[in-house]
Formats: sequence, C-alpha cells, structure tokens
Amino acid sequence: MGSPAHYSPYVARHIGPTADERSELLQRLGFDSFEALIEAAVPKDIHSQALELPEPLSEDEALAKLRSYADQNVALKPFYGQGFYETSTPPVIRRNVLESPAWYTAYTPYQPEISQGRLEALLHFQNMVSELTCLPVAGASLLDEASAAAEAVALMARVSRKGRRIIFDQRLHPQVLAVATERARTLALEVEISDITHGLVGEDLVGVILAYPGTEGDLSDIRRAIEDIHSRGALAAVDCDLLALQLLEAPGTLGADIAFGTSQRFGVPLFFGGPHAAFMAVTSKLTRQLPGRVVGIARDADGNPALRLALQTREQHIRREKATSNICTAQALLAVTATMYAIWHGADGLRQIAQRVHARACDFAASVQGDFELAHEHFFDTVTVLTPGKAEAIVQSAEERGYLLRAIGADKVSVSFGESASPADVEALAEVFGVQAKKAEGQAIPQSLLRSNPTLKHPVFSSIHSETQMLRYLRKLSDRDLALDRSMIPLGSCTMKLNPTAGLEPISWPNFANIHPYAPDRHTAGWRALIEELQGWLERITGYAKVSVQPNAGSQGELAGLLAIRRYHVARGEAQRDVVLIPRSAHGTNAASAKLANLDVVVVDNDGREGSIDMADLEAKIDKVGDRLAGIMITYPSTHGVFEASVREVCSKIHEHGGQVYIDGANMNALTGIAQPGEFGGDVSHLNLHKTFTIPHGGGGPGVGPVCVAEHLAPYLPSDPLGTDPAQPAPGDAGVPIASARYGSAGVLPISWAYIAMMGAKGLRQATATAILNANYIAAELKDAFPVLYTGPGGLVAHECILDLRPLSDATGVSAADVAKRLIDFGFHAPTLSFPVAGTLMVEPTESEDVAELDRFIQAMRAIRAEIAEIENGTTAYEESMLHHAPFNAQVACADQWPYAFGREEAVYPVESLREAKYFPPVRRLDEAYGDRNFCCTG
Amino acid sequence: MGSPAHYSPYVARHIGPTADERSELLQRLGFDSFEALIEAAVPKDIHSQALELPEPLSEDEALAKLRSYADQNVALKPFYGQGFYETSTPPVIRRNVLESPAWYTAYTPYQPEISQGRLEALLHFQNMVSELTCLPVAGASLLDEASAAAEAVALMARVSRKGRRIIFDQRLHPQVLAVATERARTLALEVEISDITHGLVGEDLVGVILAYPGTEGDLSDIRRAIEDIHSRGALAAVDCDLLALQLLEAPGTLGADIAFGTSQRFGVPLFFGGPHAAFMAVTSKLTRQLPGRVVGIARDADGNPALRLALQTREQHIRREKATSNICTAQALLAVTATMYAIWHGADGLRQIAQRVHARACDFAASVQGDFELAHEHFFDTVTVLTPGKAEAIVQSAEERGYLLRAIGADKVSVSFGESASPADVEALAEVFGVQAKKAEGQAIPQSLLRSNPTLKHPVFSSIHSETQMLRYLRKLSDRDLALDRSMIPLGSCTMKLNPTAGLEPISWPNFANIHPYAPDRHTAGWRALIEELQGWLERITGYAKVSVQPNAGSQGELAGLLAIRRYHVARGEAQRDVVLIPRSAHGTNAASAKLANLDVVVVDNDGREGSIDMADLEAKIDKVGDRLAGIMITYPSTHGVFEASVREVCSKIHEHGGQVYIDGANMNALTGIAQPGEFGGDVSHLNLHKTFTIPHGGGGPGVGPVCVAEHLAPYLPSDPLGTDPAQPAPGDAGVPIASARYGSAGVLPISWAYIAMMGAKGLRQATATAILNANYIAAELKDAFPVLYTGPGGLVAHECILDLRPLSDATGVSAADVAKRLIDFGFHAPTLSFPVAGTLMVEPTESEDVAELDRFIQAMRAIRAEIAEIENGTTAYEESMLHHAPFNAQVACADQWPYAFGREEAVYPVESLREAKYFPPVRRLDEAYGDRNFCCTG
Repeated sequence: MGSPAHYSPYVARHIGPTADERSELLQRLGFDSFEALIEAAVPKDIHSQALELPEPLSEDEALAKLRSYADQNVALKPFYGQGFYETSTPPVIRRNVLESPAWYTAYTPYQPEISQGRLEALLHFQNMVSELTCLPVAGASLLDEASAAAEAVALMARVSRKGRRIIFDQRLHPQVLAVATERARTLALEVEISDITHGLVGEDLVGVILAYPGTEGDLSDIRRAIEDIHSRGALAAVDCDLLALQLLEAPGTLGADIAFGTSQRFGVPLFFGGPHAAFMAVTSKLTRQLPGRVVGIARDADGNPALRLALQTREQHIRREKATSNICTAQALLAVTATMYAIWHGADGLRQIAQRVHARACDFAASVQGDFELAHEHFFDTVTVLTPGKAEAIVQSAEERGYLLRAIGADKVSVSFGESASPADVEALAEVFGVQAKKAEGQAIPQSLLRSNPTLKHPVFSSIHSETQMLRYLRKLSDRDLALDRSMIPLGSCTMKLNPTAGLEPISWPNFANIHPYAPDRHTAGWRALIEELQGWLERITGYAKVSVQPNAGSQGELAGLLAIRRYHVARGEAQRDVVLIPRSAHGTNAASAKLANLDVVVVDNDGREGSIDMADLEAKIDKVGDRLAGIMITYPSTHGVFEASVREVCSKIHEHGGQVYIDGANMNALTGIAQPGEFGGDVSHLNLHKTFTIPHGGGGPGVGPVCVAEHLAPYLPSDPLGTDPAQPAPGDAGVPIASARYGSAGVLPISWAYIAMMGAKGLRQATATAILNANYIAAELKDAFPVLYTGPGGLVAHECILDLRPLSDATGVSAADVAKRLIDFGFHAPTLSFPVAGTLMVEPTESEDVAELDRFIQAMRAIRAEIAEIENGTTAYEESMLHHAPFNAQVACADQWPYAFGREEAVYPVESLREAKYFPPVRRLDEAYGDRNFCCTG
Repeated sequence: MGSPAHYSPYVARHIGPTADERSELLQRLGFDSFEALIEAAVPKDIHSQALELPEPLSEDEALAKLRSYADQNVALKPFYGQGFYETSTPPVIRRNVLESPAWYTAYTPYQPEISQGRLEALLHFQNMVSELTCLPVAGASLLDEASAAAEAVALMARVSRKGRRIIFDQRLHPQVLAVATERARTLALEVEISDITHGLVGEDLVGVILAYPGTEGDLSDIRRAIEDIHSRGALAAVDCDLLALQLLEAPGTLGADIAFGTSQRFGVPLFFGGPHAAFMAVTSKLTRQLPGRVVGIARDADGNPALRLALQTREQHIRREKATSNICTAQALLAVTATMYAIWHGADGLRQIAQRVHARACDFAASVQGDFELAHEHFFDTVTVLTPGKAEAIVQSAEERGYLLRAIGADKVSVSFGESASPADVEALAEVFGVQAKKAEGQAIPQSLLRSNPTLKHPVFSSIHSETQMLRYLRKLSDRDLALDRSMIPLGSCTMKLNPTAGLEPISWPNFANIHPYAPDRHTAGWRALIEELQGWLERITGYAKVSVQPNAGSQGELAGLLAIRRYHVARGEAQRDVVLIPRSAHGTNAASAKLANLDVVVVDNDGREGSIDMADLEAKIDKVGDRLAGIMITYPSTHGVFEASVREVCSKIHEHGGQVYIDGANMNALTGIAQPGEFGGDVSHLNLHKTFTIPHGGGGPGVGPVCVAEHLAPYLPSDPLGTDPAQPAPGDAGVPIASARYGSAGVLPISWAYIAMMGAKGLRQATATAILNANYIAAELKDAFPVLYTGPGGLVAHECILDLRPLSDATGVSAADVAKRLIDFGFHAPTLSFPVAGTLMVEPTESEDVAELDRFIQAMRAIRAEIAEIENGTTAYEESMLHHAPFNAQVACADQWPYAFGREEAVYPVESLREAKYFPPVRRLDEAYGDRNFCCTG
C-alpha cells in the first residue's frame, strides 16, 4: 500500500470549493481561517479533542483494502433460505439502476415534478405487490421483512381499540418473530406464539400474523385461521413470499387484511442482510393505516396525469406521534430494482421461475424421500429434511461442495431453492445427503392453495422483453428526474452531498453482495472486520462508547435509541419514566419514534431569537413531568440550523432530573470532527449514514441509522435477531433486535467505510467546516433578498439556514411552494419546504458544492426575489406571475399557444446559463387538491 | 454451472421482436417461417452447414466462466513500462465514461448536432495533445502507438515526393519498430535503424522517427538530430510520452514536424495491450496530411458555436486510395477517458504526478547506484540497470514480491515507475536488487530538456476540482448526445445493435484490466485461453482456418488481410500481382487499405438492378489487369444491402485467374450462422467485433477487426510484434505485426466472447435472420414513401436497405441531409447518409430493435414523407419548410420570437409520442460551409 502521503488526498475531491475559494469565502464572511470560523460559530464548550483516525487512504488504497476484506468472505451457493434467497440481478438492471448515479443520487420524491421517473418505478412496485397479494392498497416499500412485521403489529394495535393480545404463527422466520414480538411487547401487547393451524382460543385479540409459507418451507391452508381471526374481530396479517405467490393463492383472496414480506429475491443481492425492500399491502378499509410512503396517481396543473406521494397527512412529518409509522427513508432504490426485475421477467417469466424453483424443490424432495423423512409434505421452494443428530454433519458436507444449507437444531436440515438452482445442483445436494437424484412425479402445493387469480396483468409487466427495451426504459425514467448528478439539491436537514464512486463500486463485488446474512462466522470474517472497524470509527467520531449499525434507517436508529433509554430506566426500577420531552421544532420522526417506543411526548417551546430551546419552558416542562421524565430528544445543531449555545446546560438539566439525553444525529454533518454528542451531554444518538457518511439517498432509501450509546446504555443496543428467544421477552438488562439481520443493511456499509477511510480525521473536520462555510456564504449572500430566520453566535448559522418567506408571502401571495416550484425552472431541486417552520425554505448546500454552483443557486434565488418584487410593486399580479405558474415543461414552452402575460424565454431561461443545459420537468405543477380528493395507488 | 436448459436463453433478451412479433412480421412479408425467409433471401448455394458452438450460457453462467478466466491471470504491480504504464483510473471516470451506456453506445460523431458532448470531449483531447506537444494541429485519436508510428511513416512518405529512405531511432520501443519498419517496407521504403545521436548520413531521406524518451528510459537532446533531418529536407517525427512532457521540452518546441504516442497512462487500464488511444499532432503545414479524425470548431445555422468533424475530404470515405489513412474507427472512448483524466488532475495535478513519478525513479536510481551501473544517466520514469547475467533472476525475485519488471536481454533490467508508485515500492524494489533504498539528491532530466512552455493552459484543465463537478460535467456532455441507450441508430453498414451488459461488466475487473501486455505467459493463462476460444469460435462462424484478433480496428483487419494476400503472392514468386479489384460501391476504406498495402486499385462497375457486381465489367477488368491481378475485395452481402446471387461465381473467376478473394466482413451481421465467407469463396476476411459481435462503438472506437484466413494464408497472419526482429524484414513466408500488442485490443474481447457464449449457434442464426427480417419489414413498410434502391432475390434486401431520395430531391429540393436532420426532431440518429450512393439513406435496424421502435421509425419517415409532399404539391416552399430548417433545439423552440411559417408544435412534436420523451439537440444544423472555410481544431 505504501505511505499515503504520495497521493493528493481525496478530501480535495470531496469538497467543492478549492483552497483558494475557501479563503475567499472566509474573507467575505470576515474570517481569516477555518479555525476562526469554527471558533465563532460553534460554542467553545463543545469543541472536542482532535479526532484520531487512521491516515487517509487514496481511492485506490481504499479499494484495495476493501478488496482484501471482500477476499476474506466466502460466498457459497446460498440454499439457506429463511427470508434471504439466491437470486440473479440482471446485469442491465445492476448497471443502470444500482450503479447509476441518476438513480442512486436522487432524493425522496417530495418534489413530484422532478421525480416522475422514480415515482413511476415505485408505482409499479405497488402494482406488483397489489396484484400478487390481491390487496388493493400497497405502499412504496418498507425497511425489511422483520420490521414490516413490527409495522403490521403497530397497525393492528392502532386499529384495535380494545384488544391487547396478539398471536404470532410459530412458523414465522425466527428473525421476524424476534423483532415483531419485542415490538409488540413494547406496545404493551400480550404476545402469544402458537401453532395457528390448531385453532385460536380466547378473546381480546388485536390480530394474528400468519406465515405463508412457514420458515421450514411448509405450506398450510390459512383460510380457516383467517376466518377464525375475523370472527373474533381481529385482523389477519400474512407474511408471504412474492415468488411463491406466482403459484399460491393470494393472501387477499384468502381473506387477509394485511400482507407483507420482502422483495429481496426479486433480483436484489443478499448483501449480507440488506438493504432489501419490504412490502406491505392492505385492504381498502385500512388505506389510511398503511405505514410508509404511497405513490398516488394524480394530475398536474394542465390536467395531465402525474404522480406524487399520496396520503402524506398520515405520515410522521405531519401527524407526528399519531403517525402510522416513524419511517421516513424506506428502500426506494431496492424497490426499484425489484420492480425492474419483475418487469424484466414479466408475468410469464416470473411464473416460469416459480415453477422451476418448485420443480427443483420437488426433485430434491423426491430424491431424499425414502432415505429420509421430510418435515412437511407441502412446500414451495424449501424442503426440510429430518436428519436426526446429523444436521451439522450434513451442512458441513454441503459446505465442502460449495453449498450453504440451514441446520435447524441438531435434527433438521432445510434446503431452499433459488432461481438459478439447476438439476446439477439437485444432483450435488442429493449426493450431500447420500442419495441418488430423482425427478419428482407430482408437485407439492396442495390443490386448495393453487393460485386462482392471474398475476401481473398490468401492461408494464408484459411491456419489456429485450435488454435494449430495459436499457431505454431505465434511461427514460431517470432522465425525468433531477438528481445530484445534475445539480445541487440544497435540502436542509437532508445533507445531499457527494456519494464517492470509490465507496459505491465495492457494493456490487460478489464477495460482498452474495453473502447470506446467516452464513456462519467463518464465512464472513471480511464483512465483520469491516463493520467492526466502521463501528469503531463512528464511536470515535461521536464520542460514544458503543455503536450498532443494525438500524437500517434513521427512524430505526431513533427507535433503537429510545428503546435503550426505556429499558435502562426499567432495569433500574424506574419504569414510571415514560415521558420524553421534544422541542417544538423537532422532526416529526422524533415524536413518532417515541410513540413506537410507547413513550409519551411533551413538547418544549423554542425561544424567539435563535429558535433555540426556551430554557424557562424546559424547566417548566421538567417540573410538570416530574418523575415520569424519561429524557429529551434534541437535534444538534438544531433543526433551525443553529448551534445553540445552551446545549450543555440542557443536557445537564435533564441529567439532574434523572432523564437521558437523546441527540438526533440528523445534523452530524455540522459536527463531525468538531464536536462529539457523546462528549457534550448525549447518552444516545443515531446517525444517518445516508446523509453525513455518503451512502446515497437512492430516491428514498436505502438508509442506515446506526445507534450510538454511552457506556451505561451499551447493554441495550440492538441484539442479534437470531440470538434471542422470541418466546421469552428480552431480559430487562438487554437490548432487543430491530432488524432482520444482525448488521441491518450491511451491503451499503462499505460506502461509509470508504468515505471515512479516504477523508481521515482532518478531512472530516475540513468537510464539516466547509459545510458551515458554504451555508454561511449562502445565508450572507441571500439575507438581503430573504431574511434568514434564525442565527446563532456571531450571527452565524450552522450548516444550513432557514430563509423566511412569510413576510413576502403575506405581502404578495407568493408562497414558499411557489418559490420551490419556480426553482425547477432554474434546474434546481427545491430546498426543504416548510420544515421546521411553515412558510420557509431551509437551505443546506453541504461541503460538496463548489462556489460556482453556490453562486448559480444564489443567482436563481435573487432572480426569483426580483420576480417577487414585480408583484410587490404592482407591475405583475400574483395570478399572472411566473411564480404562480411554475414550473414550465417543454410541452407548454413549445406550444403554439402561449397563454401567459410573461414571455416564454423569461419563463424557461430566466438566467442565461440555462441555455447551456436545461432541465425540463416532465409535468407541470401537481394538482395537490385533485390528488387529495382522488386517491389511487395502482394503475 | 449445471445444464443451461434451466434458464430462459439470453437470445430472447438480445433480439428485439418477440416470437409472436417475428411471426407476425414474417406473415406480413409472406413467409411462414424464418427458414422460408432465409431460403428466399439468401442464395441457396452459400448456405452453410449448421454451426457448431457450445450450448448457450445464461448471463450468470457467462459471467462465472469469465471470472474463472480472470482468476487464471496474475496481476502484478506493473513496473514494466515499454509503452504500457501503471495508471489509476479515477472511479468517477470509470463509472461514468467507461461503464456508462450514454458514452459507450454512441456512434462516431458524423451527425454533429446530436454529438456535441463527445465532440467537446474529443476537442479537449486535441487541446491536451496540442498543448503538451506544442504542435498546433492534433487529431481526435489513433489506434495505438505502433500503428501511429506507421501512420507517421505513411504521412512522411506522402509528403516526400522523392525520398525513399526512412530512419528509425533504435531507441524506439521494439513493438513500435516492428510495426513501423514493416509498414515502411510495405511502402517500398528503405529502412534504417540507427543511433540517431551519432548524426545522420546520406540523402534521399523521407523522414526520421525519434524516441523521446527511449525504450530504456534514456533521454537525449534531439534538437541537433531534428536540425540535421530538416537540413536534408526530411521530416522529423517524435514518439513521445504525454506524462514525460509535463517536465520535458515539447517536441514542437524542439522543432519536430510530427509528434505521436499513446495516451494510455492517462487513466486507461493496461487492458492486456489495448484499447488505448494513440495521439498525433503536426505542424500547420501538415494539417491536411494528418491521419484520422479531427474535431473542428464551427458554428450552427443560428451562428452559435458548434463542433463537428473537420477536414473530412482527406478521409478514406471521400479520398479513397488517396486518403491520409484507412482509419475509420479510432479510440474515441479511450481518448475521452484520457482527456477526462487530464481534466480531473488538471495542469497542476499532472505536473505533480510527473514530478512524483520522476522523483521515485530518481530515488530508485540513487538506491541501486554504487552496487549497479545504470545504463543511462538521464531518464524520466524508467531506470535501466546493468545486471550482467542476472536479469532473469532479478525479474524472478521481483515477481515473488509482486512486481513485474522488464528484463532486456540477459544483462539489463528496466524498472518503470507509474503514478501510484510509492516510497514503499522503491524500498521493496531496492530489496529486490539487494540494496538499501535512498533518497535521490538531484534529478535526472538534463537542464537543456527541461520544459520551458507552460502546459495545459486551456481553462478546461483548471475547471474541475471535485468529484461532483466531474460527475456533472460527464452527465452534461453525455446528455447532449443521442446514443443507443435512448433510441435506435439505424445506420446502414454500421450495425448499431445492443451491447449486452453481461459482456461489458468484466472488462473493468482488475484481473482483466490490470494485466500488462508483455507479462510472461505464466501470468496470462486466463487471457490467452479466452482469446483462443474466441478465435476458435470465429473460425467456425466464418468458415476460415485461422483467425487473429490482433487488428485493433476494421481498417487494420483489412490491411492485415491485404498484406497476407500480398505476401502470399510474393512468396510464390508472383510479386507482379499488385492490383486489387474493388467494386464501385465499396467502402472507401477498402481502397485506402489497398494503398497502404502498396497495391493498385482497379474499380469494377456495379450493374443497375441489384447494384451487384457487373459480371461483364469484372471479366473485362480481369483481362485488363492480367497477371497483375492480386485479388478482389468485395463486401458480402454487398454495401448495397443485397445478397448477390453471383458471389460464388465472382470468387471462382478471381481464383481462376490466380487472384485471391477478400471478403469484407462489415456485413457479417447478415451472414452469421447462415453462410460462411471462408466456405463460399473467400480466402481472407476481416470482421468487425464492434459491429456484429457487440463491442460498443464507443462514440468512434474502440473497434476490433480480426482477420480470418484460409489455410494457405495462415502463415501470413499478423505476427507477434515482440517476436520479430525489426532490423530484418519479416521472412517472405511469414506475417508482419500490425499492432503494439500480440492480441491488439484484448481488453474488450470478453464482450464478444460473452455475446457468442450466450447466444450459441442457434441464437446467432436467429439474430441474423431477425436482422434480415427487420430490414425487410422496414423496406416493405417504407417502399411506398421512399423507393428501395436495390433488392436481391425475391425482391428482398439483406440486413439493410437503401432508401432513394434522389427523385424527390430533384422534384422538391429536399436533400437526404434534410431528412437526416429532420429525423433528429423525431429523436432519431439518421441512417447512413449518401453511402454507398449519394443522395440516399441506408437503413439498418439490426435484430435488437423491437417492433415498436421499428414502427416509431417508420412513422417518422412517413411523417417526413408527408412533409415533403407539402413541398411537392406546392403547399409549402422548400425554403420555408421544416425540413430545410431542422433540427430545432430548445432555444429556438422556446424563443419569444418564432420566425417560421410552420408552427412550433409541428416542428418539435411532429408525432404525439414525442411528448412522452423529447430529445432536444443542443445546437441547430451545422454550418458546414463556415466550418470548411474556418478550420480550427483547438480552443
């Protein structure tokens, strides 16, 4: 590897402004160095010691080190199953979705006009799920199978006003049981794990989750059970397998209210556990209870069809603790991948794959039968063989032949067939069992469960046959969207910074991508070494004692952190501590997570000037809450984009009253290398690796939300979902699992590993300082046009700033949304709209944007301000303004008729540089009112 | 791997129309099966036996097999040099150029309006070369260093009317000497290889090629030599190193007339020899002598700056045997990569890299000095150590430590430093030599050779600093272009078909990409096995005895084939056979290649009906040529898109008269799996792997042009450039090398390997039949709108058809070019324009286009026909027509003023489907006349 000093460091590639430009910006702001800026902007009492990390690596060195980790993993042919299956990602999809910046650098489609491509892809995800489950309302993905089960639990608990008892089918995968049972217990439900085929007993039932098929591959007719559940006034949720549903009767047809599962086996690599898109579909009655995002079909201002996120009023950012879930980021990129896989194979192709998989399983079953007893007569893809006392030996022997099988206890071996399984594989596996391969004569799906409904009749599932068609379809969709590969996405609190390619390349490497999460440790040494190193670095960066990467989104990190606080109090005999204080400015997820952790929320006010926590109100609330105080959830720097000077004081006050401090790491991009939440008062934080640590947003996921805790909370970190007994509540002094796999979305962790490895301690600090510098440059340049709502010490902002449009809105009628839409005509994704303060725009440029791009944004905002001035001074009426009618797509701009008072050129080319490269949105402004009145999530 | 039968075969992904659609098209054409179509379209007497190839593999199986080949290669750290250097491809460039369909599926930028992105990139290649060499006129890439030397020879020979003697610096790389000397001898030049530092003797000199630095790394001041050359009226060409030129005085400054070399070390992987872009720059006086493509700065119809290919009148397609070169395809994709590498590092960064490389070399030299003698005191990056009798042992010892060094004979070892070489490498290498590493005190470039001119002052070389900027720049450029990833490119004779991703992925794998071409055979077992298998498959497909993949473009394949014919005749004592017959319809390359092989050309007429060879004229020409008949070059099916029924007869006639038959494989896409040129009469053919065998066109290269020969010509296949002694002419019974590396552009061969492996024999035949079907469908659907100029048996065309616009042009003034430009407004790249017949369009849909896309094209052509009808019937004047003013870019379409008689919508959205996805060209129609008057190739 050699000494790294011979390379120019990567940090110069990550950071937008050059050294000269940074000096110039600093001077304009009145500072002579970064250190001076940091001194002024960041309260002195939180500055941390110099961060210690290894010397930074070059891109090539980082790739070489990652390759050495990959080489330490062993990728056997995965016939393990248990929720994670062998699948084949079509290369055209791998290259043009998973490896395409146009897809992976996109943000969540909150701005529908520039997101029609990914919205269409996600709509087809919903179409796919809805058709396969035969339930009318499907969402645009959840985080993983186990957490989807937990969401189903929460859904059923919300719907059932009185029930307190929930039953889990004992045939569910162990990881699903582990996560869902603990989530149910957290919600104070009584949990029962039983053989649902034997009938139900008792009343007071919230719902039941059924396995279809069971974890051992067994199929049973769940109709009777569902009827029984319904007769008791409870809901039936079915954990199902999308590939099996090609052949099996759909859950909706069987009467289920909810169906969920994972779409991993639709072309998404195993990724050592994730990221994979889970799905959920529900009956119409439950529409507004569906957790996560839903894409709806609506129309634009010209009446043309247009897609958008629908039903947002039930989401965390609006309903807060009353939301249907705390999920923000889901698994958009993986949902798109799975959808494209389904489109690629089409209705017929998927059915053939399912038939082939089933035929292989039947052949294998026929081969071992006679010499061995099968655990179950009926199955789809997984055959469980009774092998008394020999399970380990058989698994070992399979391993020697290159196959990964699943031992269930000492006496059973499960063999699960994926789409690539060949007759030769059946032969090899028969050999492992010491038998001759045979062809099966019949099949193993009971007649009563054979699918009666056709699958995937939507035309898109028979539209694409050739690679050329797929290539062009993917290009067409991605061209409709505006992502980070074309322009700045200045989203406050979302940190849309560069995703370095050197970190992204390795995630496709077979020895990372093709590792089963439950492979024995001896196969995963590379993965585990990488993850341990990354966790160690995150510990040093945050100043906490221990980090777990298990949470596969920020929302899950929050939940894990709150559960740690909750269990800590309970273990200390202070179970009454069940209230968490949350500032008014907090992200809605905080409140929603508190609810999932079964904590009550009390809101603390913000003061007027800096938007900081109002200390008087804090004290009042602490007093009011008394010994119910579990803790406080704060974001630092605050969601107002300010380094509150009082943060240590806030932490101390909470600690004095026996509470724990949760510091939301959403804004860690303003702290990394400068201050450590674990040092200045936090007991627990979560990070967002998809923000600060350069995992791309993927159009709305994947995310990773590691949870970081101080020493005393370390025992409560998420536990291994396979290391716990779901039938027993986790002991009071231990954590609970919150994801299907021990390391959550391990597959994308090399991205953050590479980022930290290439930046080093100084580089990270420089990135943070540049993020603060860029934000202050924008704030300073725009403050005459739009007042900056909150500033901290020295009149400075942190890494983002809130532009207050309310006075102008009052004066002119121009809304913050108008400005957001008009920015599209300038080729920009809007800043964060109306969060944390309605009627404002929050701008976060990040350190990756160079000065030319910052200036382009400043120019756009000033041009918009001038357009507003025309309305202010009466030259133009609001209703006749470009702001009111923006954005302008190519169709309107090239129409024979031009119905507006303003000219085409000023609408389309408000600044000259746009003539060089112009993005036209595919649709006009969404007609939100129409969409609200007409919900439609399939079609 | 298992039996392949369990997968749906890949062929269904490669071929556009589904089985149902194929049946429907066949029915419409009046056939009930593919076999019936083939029977009718292809002369019976050339149908071949069923092709035998292995059973087709799935994508995953092909990738697995390729991975096993890669695993058999050994990638040591390459300190070998000799024209191929260790370099680091920035990941952002690898992913967004080399691995981006938007770049690699683009065609040569003949249609400038839809090629501004790659034209800009290539312009910067010219800027880079021109600035570094200090010569004003640079081209847009050549094929490799050795063939660039050969082009320099040909250039000098053309300019020198009387000279017959050429001198090569003995310090040139052996492969350069091997290729260039034989090329010179072919042109009947007298070759001398000598130590040019000792002065020149004799007159009659055409030119001299100097090495700068020499192959052993040695630097010497070539000023005196250049003066000496000039004083004798000859030209001085300098083979130079772009990285060394950061520190060395430029060849132009030293007085050179020509500078050339390879740009490989600017971020392009070693690729086991290629593809790599060579460069050439010349003095203004030699502008019109420059071989290969040149990008020129011109303007569009609106007077805005616009780029185009300039000086085309000196190219093979116009000047034929008087062209400056036979090159068509060059190395555009690799030239773009090298250019982006230069932009990425910038002027300062490149200089620092050069300094670092030089410093390492100096440190190493200082370390070994004392214990060893250095061969040369002055060097840039390569240190040659005198190691009497120990060279092999030292190389072995280095290998054990993971380093690849170069032994020169038994007594010298050469150590060449690349950009990633670290102090640790110097230490390890010192250890290999048994010495202690030391730091050097001075440097090793003579004062007189230190660079006086600044490098890379063009602003683009200081425009990009961050990865974000590079990502967006690459996206912006590629968005300007229309490539195969957005729509059909129906280019007759160019076969723009799908490039399967599964074949493209492996070329980036380190164990393919990072192998030095001169690594010992024990390191390259995987590469050689793959290549031998591919060559074997191509032998079976073509019906020839032996295939060589060495030619790195079709043009080089042609030359290699003609050289084989020529040497065959000479070896048989028939040196007088020096005339080759070429049909009038032939591609200009044929004639240009003949010239390079020093053969005279006699043209044979075509007959009127089918555009076939006029048999009477053929006989007349055979008689006329007499015993000078070397052979004939024909294309089959003909360039007129027709299966000539007489091909066997033509071949026989030539054979009867002692000639050899060269069958140009340009149209092999119409033969593969159906007929074999080696069987129906050819003695030699070349293929275009970048056409028929799915290597992408890369915006104008890479290409691979394997040469295929019958048994009697096998001895004349290209020889290993390192296996021959340049000082001695190749023996009369042997072939000569034509590329720098034994296997030419080996790096892209996995693409063709994968294609054949995944298609299998039946799949290839099906592809060919579908290509013929698609072409006949288009011909049938369009023949009422535009007459199809030539048809063969049964009124059928082969895999392409010529639409004759001349009658309409005569009647209306609408030119074929107008139609080509108007097609841009429909989102199509134009068909081949005015080749092989002026005033026509030649359409080749290929088998990869599905029926919907074919129909979209048919719809566009019919709509254009209707627009022409408006002119025909007097409704519209030609000068006021959309055809005359097309294409329309966004700027004109959105302008406040609309100066045209027709409406905006009919101009921009002539068919409704364009509203769904519209491509706007970045410029209006090129002002060719302006460009012709104002040549400018830098800026």
